[in-house]
Amino acid sequence: SPKKVKVGTAAEGYDEKKHFEATYETLAKELLEDMKTYRLPANGLAWVEKMLNYTIPGGKMNRGLTVVSSLKSLKKRDLTEEELLHAEVLGWCVELLQAFFLISDDIMDSSVTRRGAPCWYRAEGVGMIAINDAFIVEATIYRLIKKYFRGHAFYADLLDLMHEVTYQTELGQLMDLITAPEDNVDLTRFSIEKYKYIVEFKTAYYSFYLPVALAMMLHGIPADSDSYKQALRVLLPLGEYFQAQDDYLDCFGSPEVIGKIGTDIEDNKCSWLVNQALPLCNAEQRKKLDENYGQRKPENVAVVKQVYAELDLEGLYRNYEEESHAKVMKLIEEIDEKVLPRDMFVTFVKRVYKRNK
Amino acid sequence: SPKKVKVGTAAEGYDEKKHFEATYETLAKELLEDMKTYRLPANGLAWVEKMLNYTIPGGKMNRGLTVVSSLKSLKKRDLTEEELLHAEVLGWCVELLQAFFLISDDIMDSSVTRRGAPCWYRAEGVGMIAINDAFIVEATIYRLIKKYFRGHAFYADLLDLMHEVTYQTELGQLMDLITAPEDNVDLTRFSIEKYKYIVEFKTAYYSFYLPVALAMMLHGIPADSDSYKQALRVLLPLGEYFQAQDDYLDCFGSPEVIGKIGTDIEDNKCSWLVNQALPLCNAEQRKKLDENYGQRKPENVAVVKQVYAELDLEGLYRNYEEESHAKVMKLIEEIDEKVLPRDMFVTFVKRVYKRNK
Ligand SMILES: [Mg+2]
Ligand SMILES: [Mg+2]
Ligand SMILES: [Mg+2]
Ligand SMILES: [Mg+2]
Ligand SMILES: [Mg+2]
Ligand SMILES: [Mg+2]
Repeated sequence: SPKKVKVGTAAEGYDEKKHFEATYETLAKELLEDMKTYRLPANGLAWVEKMLNYTIPGGKMNRGLTVVSSLKSLKKRDLTEEELLHAEVLGWCVELLQAFFLISDDIMDSSVTRRGAPCWYRAEGVGMIAINDAFIVEATIYRLIKKYFRGHAFYADLLDLMHEVTYQTELGQLMDLITAPEDNVDLTRFSIEKYKYIVEFKTAYYSFYLPVALAMMLHGIPADSDSYKQALRVLLPLGEYFQAQDDYLDCFGSPEVIGKIGTDIEDNKCSWLVNQALPLCNAEQRKKLDENYGQRKPENVAVVKQVYAELDLEGLYRNYEEESHAKVMKLIEEIDEKVLPRDMFVTFVKRVYKRNK
Repeated sequence: SPKKVKVGTAAEGYDEKKHFEATYETLAKELLEDMKTYRLPANGLAWVEKMLNYTIPGGKMNRGLTVVSSLKSLKKRDLTEEELLHAEVLGWCVELLQAFFLISDDIMDSSVTRRGAPCWYRAEGVGMIAINDAFIVEATIYRLIKKYFRGHAFYADLLDLMHEVTYQTELGQLMDLITAPEDNVDLTRFSIEKYKYIVEFKTAYYSFYLPVALAMMLHGIPADSDSYKQALRVLLPLGEYFQAQDDYLDCFGSPEVIGKIGTDIEDNKCSWLVNQALPLCNAEQRKKLDENYGQRKPENVAVVKQVYAELDLEGLYRNYEEESHAKVMKLIEEIDEKVLPRDMFVTFVKRVYKRNK
């Protein structure tokens, strides 16, 4: 029988994360070798190497690691070397998809920093070339999938899944962007319904559904199986919580810990916080939000944050976090163990709740 | 036997182009209906409708129409209704791929106009949202291919081909962008070798190889057949000529006719023209190029154009055009008629040579 690889927790003496990171080094080398078959000149190779190194590793890797842990839950045993490699390759495909979105999102949001460094488009000599770099990152996903899965029965299903989730995310980004035009601040445009649409589409599918669905596909669950819908029933609410938390940290998190300076208030974003504030605030507070939300100056941002403090949005968030956790755990209990292992979802929940970065 | 549709020239009483345009209307409606299944809110639908209408139709449609005419050449007869629809769908996929590249290319090149109107990113209220719009346009390619070809034997090959050509184009764009950084003009970076790489990758694969390869796939030629390599042998030189022509028109074409104001000199582009000028110019002319190329001011551009006039680059281009035409016609003669119909290439050549827009 094929050699099994121990993929447990650090406490069990094995570092899942380090193994995943080591596989990145291999894949990055393979991608650069692959570019040589396209006769890419040396300065092009050097550019791509630097760009990948700047934009891909160094994140939390929750999405990518979830492919590995989910496949392990599905198999109910340690993975073989081949299974682990396949899960890690698809895990890195999720991380590449994320990088594709983040490189471009930072341009569209005029963001300044990411993971403790200037956003890629603000790095020396990069600028708008970052747009084409984002495209290249997206394209490498399909280079890897072709290399590792071209002969597999589920190859077309894998491509369909990646395309589908990419599209959903782009539709969510569109709604995020046009609901919050920076040159035309109008808080009446916001609503919890719009907020929920944006969150489901711009975050939940690619960050929560995709890693689990990829593991399910690797496990051989047919693409038309109802199990994928069952998984969505837990993973979309989990994604909704995650984005509320992201919005909370954008304002209340410590920039040194989260690795970026939040700009949601300046960017006029339809954030969880402003959607909580709007139905709670009195006329005077509303006036302050109308006049100060979506403005670039620190003075304006400070006024918005003061209203948030008066409304105790931090306390409100703590309550929401508890309620949301209870709700997701209840949804997991409703999962049919004969269809999907509950611990696959529990592992994911543990990665996400009460993070501070 | 299935109903055949007459797809001839206008002189034969049938307008291939009008039929192709009418199919666009159908496909655009289908894409918007499809977005409703993603629950896209009304303002999102309105945005996408406007964006597609602004960026997709109204071009020359040479690439898209070539899928139709190539399939007709391969079949050596009129197409059935279904064959025509399939060729037109893939033709529009090439046009969508082109729009994806142009929307983003205009941002990266700081271009002002396209097809006689402001570039999409310069349209009222758009700005950097155009980046995500480009992504959506790319994603619609895979929506259409899934809808029309999911059950076909060549579905995975079709996806591989689109991914491959997208990747090649992005590598070409990368070399185009980093060979011509606007903040660091250095003409010694340019060379005919670099020029040829950029042209092959950023233009020839998607504009010349792709439409013909798609028709070949529709015709049932297996993806691993040597015929695709035979086609490349003609289509890459044809693409090289086309880009030289594009570079020529960027400087010497009439903006009213080509629908855009050329910016290659301002953008410090590794253009056919500057690569011709560099080995020909004397010390004084070289100094003028060094000091004025890649500068935004009209005075600088005028000095560059004056050097081009002194070197008679227009006459040089006319010679190159004749030589290039003769070379491509000779390559077509070398094509094995048992493998691929020569008239497929001749039709394409006729669309391309001596265009003025
Ligand atoms: Mg952002
Ligand atoms: Mg954003
Ligand atoms: Mg955020
Ligand atoms: Mg351009
Ligand atoms: Mg360009
Ligand atoms: Mg041009």
